[in-house]
Amino acid sequence: MIKKVLLGILCFGGILTIGILIGHFGIKQNVDSGPVWVKDVMKDVDESFIEQFLSEVNNINIQENLRQLTEVPHMATSPGDEKTVQLMLKRWQDPDSGLDAAWREEYMVYLSFPDAKNPNKVTVVNSSNSVLYTVREKEKVYTPDQENPEVVQPYAAYSPAGKPKGKLVFANQGKASDYALLNKTVDLRGTIAITRYGGAGRSAKAINAAPYGVIGVLVYTDPWDMNDGLMSDVNETYPHSWYLPPSGVERGSYNVMFGDMLTPYLAAKEDTYRIPKEDITGIPPIPTQPIGFEDAEKLICELGGTKAPDSWQGGFKCAYNFGGPGFKPTSPFNDSDVKLEIFNSETLKNSSNVMGIIRGSVEPDRYVIYGNHRDSWVHGAIECSGTAVMLELSRVLGTMVKQGKWRPRRSIIFGSWGAEEFGLIGSAEYTEQYFTKLSERTVAYINVDIAVFANATLRASGMPSMQNIIFKASQQVNAPGLGSTTVYDNWIRYSNRSSPAHGLIPRMGYLSGAGSDYAAFVHYLGIAAVDISYTYDRTKTNARIYPAYHTAYDTFDYASKFIDPGFTSHQAIARTAGNVLIRLADSLVLPLSYTDYAEILEAYLKTAVDLYEVKLQEKNVSMESLKNAVVSFRRAADGMEQTIRNLDLANETPLVVRKINDQLMLLDRAFLNPLAFPDKYAFRHVIWASSSAGKPTFPGLADAFAAANSSVASGDWSKVHYHLSVLSQAIDGAASTLTEVI
Amino acid sequence: MIKKVLLGILCFGGILTIGILIGHFGIKQNVDSGPVWVKDVMKDVDESFIEQFLSEVNNINIQENLRQLTEVPHMATSPGDEKTVQLMLKRWQDPDSGLDAAWREEYMVYLSFPDAKNPNKVTVVNSSNSVLYTVREKEKVYTPDQENPEVVQPYAAYSPAGKPKGKLVFANQGKASDYALLNKTVDLRGTIAITRYGGAGRSAKAINAAPYGVIGVLVYTDPWDMNDGLMSDVNETYPHSWYLPPSGVERGSYNVMFGDMLTPYLAAKEDTYRIPKEDITGIPPIPTQPIGFEDAEKLICELGGTKAPDSWQGGFKCAYNFGGPGFKPTSPFNDSDVKLEIFNSETLKNSSNVMGIIRGSVEPDRYVIYGNHRDSWVHGAIECSGTAVMLELSRVLGTMVKQGKWRPRRSIIFGSWGAEEFGLIGSAEYTEQYFTKLSERTVAYINVDIAVFANATLRASGMPSMQNIIFKASQQVNAPGLGSTTVYDNWIRYSNRSSPAHGLIPRMGYLSGAGSDYAAFVHYLGIAAVDISYTYDRTKTNARIYPAYHTAYDTFDYASKFIDPGFTSHQAIARTAGNVLIRLADSLVLPLSYTDYAEILEAYLKTAVDLYEVKLQEKNVSMESLKNAVVSFRRAADGMEQTIRNLDLANETPLVVRKINDQLMLLDRAFLNPLAFPDKYAFRHVIWASSSAGKPTFPGLADAFAAANSSVASGDWSKVHYHLSVLSQAIDGAASTLTEVI
Repeated sequence: MIKKVLLGILCFGGILTIGILIGHFGIKQNVDSGPVWVKDVMKDVDESFIEQFLSEVNNINIQENLRQLTEVPHMATSPGDEKTVQLMLKRWQDPDSGLDAAWREEYMVYLSFPDAKNPNKVTVVNSSNSVLYTVREKEKVYTPDQENPEVVQPYAAYSPAGKPKGKLVFANQGKASDYALLNKTVDLRGTIAITRYGGAGRSAKAINAAPYGVIGVLVYTDPWDMNDGLMSDVNETYPHSWYLPPSGVERGSYNVMFGDMLTPYLAAKEDTYRIPKEDITGIPPIPTQPIGFEDAEKLICELGGTKAPDSWQGGFKCAYNFGGPGFKPTSPFNDSDVKLEIFNSETLKNSSNVMGIIRGSVEPDRYVIYGNHRDSWVHGAIECSGTAVMLELSRVLGTMVKQGKWRPRRSIIFGSWGAEEFGLIGSAEYTEQYFTKLSERTVAYINVDIAVFANATLRASGMPSMQNIIFKASQQVNAPGLGSTTVYDNWIRYSNRSSPAHGLIPRMGYLSGAGSDYAAFVHYLGIAAVDISYTYDRTKTNARIYPAYHTAYDTFDYASKFIDPGFTSHQAIARTAGNVLIRLADSLVLPLSYTDYAEILEAYLKTAVDLYEVKLQEKNVSMESLKNAVVSFRRAADGMEQTIRNLDLANETPLVVRKINDQLMLLDRAFLNPLAFPDKYAFRHVIWASSSAGKPTFPGLADAFAAANSSVASGDWSKVHYHLSVLSQAIDGAASTLTEVI
Repeated sequence: MIKKVLLGILCFGGILTIGILIGHFGIKQNVDSGPVWVKDVMKDVDESFIEQFLSEVNNINIQENLRQLTEVPHMATSPGDEKTVQLMLKRWQDPDSGLDAAWREEYMVYLSFPDAKNPNKVTVVNSSNSVLYTVREKEKVYTPDQENPEVVQPYAAYSPAGKPKGKLVFANQGKASDYALLNKTVDLRGTIAITRYGGAGRSAKAINAAPYGVIGVLVYTDPWDMNDGLMSDVNETYPHSWYLPPSGVERGSYNVMFGDMLTPYLAAKEDTYRIPKEDITGIPPIPTQPIGFEDAEKLICELGGTKAPDSWQGGFKCAYNFGGPGFKPTSPFNDSDVKLEIFNSETLKNSSNVMGIIRGSVEPDRYVIYGNHRDSWVHGAIECSGTAVMLELSRVLGTMVKQGKWRPRRSIIFGSWGAEEFGLIGSAEYTEQYFTKLSERTVAYINVDIAVFANATLRASGMPSMQNIIFKASQQVNAPGLGSTTVYDNWIRYSNRSSPAHGLIPRMGYLSGAGSDYAAFVHYLGIAAVDISYTYDRTKTNARIYPAYHTAYDTFDYASKFIDPGFTSHQAIARTAGNVLIRLADSLVLPLSYTDYAEILEAYLKTAVDLYEVKLQEKNVSMESLKNAVVSFRRAADGMEQTIRNLDLANETPLVVRKINDQLMLLDRAFLNPLAFPDKYAFRHVIWASSSAGKPTFPGLADAFAAANSSVASGDWSKVHYHLSVLSQAIDGAASTLTEVI
């Protein structure tokens, strides 16, 4: 009995023990992985989601978007612009495919318009004031689009009003050197200069002219620069091809700075302080008007004086003379003047940005911003191609969010900027209003302005840290019309370089100018940015840009017939840019590479040493601190790459990942110096600021060197030394943000 | 049998089930709370650790620290300074009580010294060039300290060398208004002005003088301003009391800006670009020399001319006359000149900061910085009291770290700044070198410069967001010599105000000037900061500051006999400041309060509206945007407080807490505007910048209003409008960083 009891107890104990063991080790407890958020906060980008996104981006939707966006002309603040505001809001507030929220933000900005009741006039008048010739006031109508009464007359925004009259001269591209040369043979006082687009900025053509006594400027597009020489609308130009018809005129904003001119560094709210108009810099000091090449030919081919140099000659079938000044004795215009009657006026208008957001699930306080402008000069179909793409991309993502299938780790902000055409105004005001918030929280800015210039190849410009994201994204998208060739493989054929680290790779450009809405993000905020588009095969055209640019011919018809029939290049851009966006929003560790950035700094340094060191040594200015800084940056970047490679993500705290992401996100902020370029509005980034020296190296150093080298004042060399210190310390500071944090 | 088998199976099953249940639910699995880091990352400040810290702060250690620090004079870059560098390094590198790491950082900075071989001289010389009187070159010796050959002769740092000679005049405090009044009765051209300390900045006394043709300036300490009228070293002044002996001279840096003068906005490294010396602003344009009141009395009481106004009279037993110019006819100095022979020279010297760190365990990339300067003019015992405190505080914390008992959540950086006396140079260079890193990661800066001015009460100045931390800390420390009365309860008796939110509370000051090393952190980096000390009972003395300030009498003997015998006030400061430090480093949610900040902005706004609105309405300048901005800030601050109150910390992700902490940490950055005060080096904080208007309101607005109000140029009102826009948009921007992040 005792035996049985003992056996029973033993049995009981044994079975119980087995049970306990099974219970403890055999059955996974549901709290086993800790709080529910542990998995969420450590989730990485989902490649299958990217695949799904790519498959859902629809070219026909983009086409339809573009059709709707370009139904009427929609110049900034016009009724057509308001229509596009409403369209954006409707789409982004759609309950099934919209974003979490969307709203408009208004700024009261300084714009310049012609007077519809008093159109600008350009005429040839003889000495008894009879009009011998009148330049066309509006572009010729080929499709009903051009008949819309809202098509704005060609004009030079921010050109002053006035009625200058004088002998005509030809000043090539209106560069400072052009006027200097012209002035050697012609007395320019009291003359009107006709110039061609290209070579110098729009307003520079008038700014460079005024010191010589020139009193008015005409600007035209030479067929040589835009139409590969073609000129006839009988069969050569639109609507027969993508080339510019003879009466087409490129409109544009004639200014140097960007952002609202009256409220630099302040958001242009109704009661914001505005500088006196007299203090605006960078706009034409004398009346200026753009005209078509049809009229320009009539004027230029009648000019007297000596023949201009070969490099000044263009596509017209005549010699381009300097002008006597004025027309040649054999001309019907002999002894006549050219008269400009310009009635432009400036006005404060409310311009809207439309903002849309998808809230981040894990790090809502980290922003990936995707934006482009909504306004155009006329119908702006190519101008609006980025918006058509953005609407499709946001539809796909919005639908996923609304269906509860996806929510990005970080917040996504979409910006549809207003008044870009007048000088990147909407995006600049946005960065001024939210400066601190954006600079603290923004991971990157993606700009797709003109999505498709042409159907040949991808073009991407941006911070070198973004290179590998663009590469990755472009490797996952097929190039339109090329079967299974990827956008990447096609790109590398068109444009490439040899990288010390990667071998042969596609060549990315830099964002050193202020060509589109990335400017304020790069130069004022120091945010990693990229600008993406599809572009030309340069073996097939020398056109400065797509020929209908800023004319009344940039229409849906033009876009769908000559730029991207089928909209497959638009689709490729939507897929590539969307892929970049998702990677930036969802990657656990931000995919920004600073070894790639180091490579570019090293290349810049090598150029600077090659170009400047011998001369600087003569002037007792040492480049050692710059060399050391670049070495420090390289070391820090390599170290960071090593740190990321060694991360044991399964066991790291979310705060360790956040620490690294903060270092990656904020790197470019260290390159900002608000005192480095005091005369250039918002240019604070010492690596990417604009430069007039035209050297592939550090801009402040290059410009200071060029200035000192062409000056007799020895003090100018100290400015080179100053810029070397600014630059070295910025790079050192950047390196110190990338090394271990303490 | 079947029954038995069934029973057995049932039994077996039952027991097994019980076992499984026990095993599964009864025994806690060690993975039960998820990854091991989950608890660590959500750990809050440990109150028992604070208690332990408080109990271990030892007054006698502080006394010993001070004794060692002040053994020899340790003016910046002197051998004595190097001795203190070595002391700091030894302590912070101690294996048992040191920090994780400590090192020195050097800057090559522009300093000004007298010539030991050619001492500065001030004499009275008659018309035949005979010397009638010579001002004392060195202070009188009362204790062996003053005999040390390293005691620097009294001088005005950055005063130019020169030998001006002229008739003496008395110019009160050397304010602009003083010279204007004096100039009404005396022709100041070619005169030497004697001025008393106070009323105007040191260099202002010479800067204000030069435009009137004054060629040299003497500066002295009037017994009325410093000694409560007492003057005799027989029994009234040190070594009989804390009062200044008759020969005592306040040295000092005669400059307006701070940081190294030759390298503004750049770290002063060896090869950094340096501005031309001629471009330095804010230093005396004419030779200047400080003297003791013993000599000043001799000169002032002999002055001729009319009697100066009552407010100009001081402690001497004679009438203070303007000067004829020069001495009165009855004086032995009649018709004599005063002659200055100044041999100061400027030189570049290596000055060291000593840095020490404790690495943060959870958020190493968040810094709480605690600092003060190490240099002095002579022995600088009171000047070094902050360093003596810091060494004790870092010993207690360092020991805990070395013993593995504690590691702060965030990193702690200790800074022992060099060359503060010459213009906050070490701290300013540090912020210039690491600008981006510090501004991105620094939670707060705690400054304890002179820890103990006197034994009466706490004094604290800082961002309003820090108020509740100071209050909390001061409530946990007993006031020295007052039994169980807390520092807080004692403080509120001495200085208080009525807060709309809190009722009667101690009055905190602001950090609107550049009085100590907090300046670069507040004004250049926009970091929340606090400056803490123990100070006077103002009912007992009117002394401008402790009377031995910057003299050869500021010694360990002086400090331990007259300022804080027993060093219990030092102990109270170490406990209070250390408590603040631990709370900032360890609190899970940063204890910064923006409702308290809102309260001060509302008070500033009320003052501004009361003072300016009527007049501004006349000038068509509206204050509405400012009012709206303050309302937005209040709403955002209330919302943030609500958010924090509603946080369910047990279930929040660490990234949600980090998000809120980032908002709290970065708030003041939104108040920075590098363009708001272009003429004031490093003043970028639009709420706390220095102001000459002397109104308790927004500094830029107050100064712009004062300037416009005293000007006839109507354009000056537009500068008021400009500052209103700068200010409103900064406050709006700050509010937008505090509201929900997306």
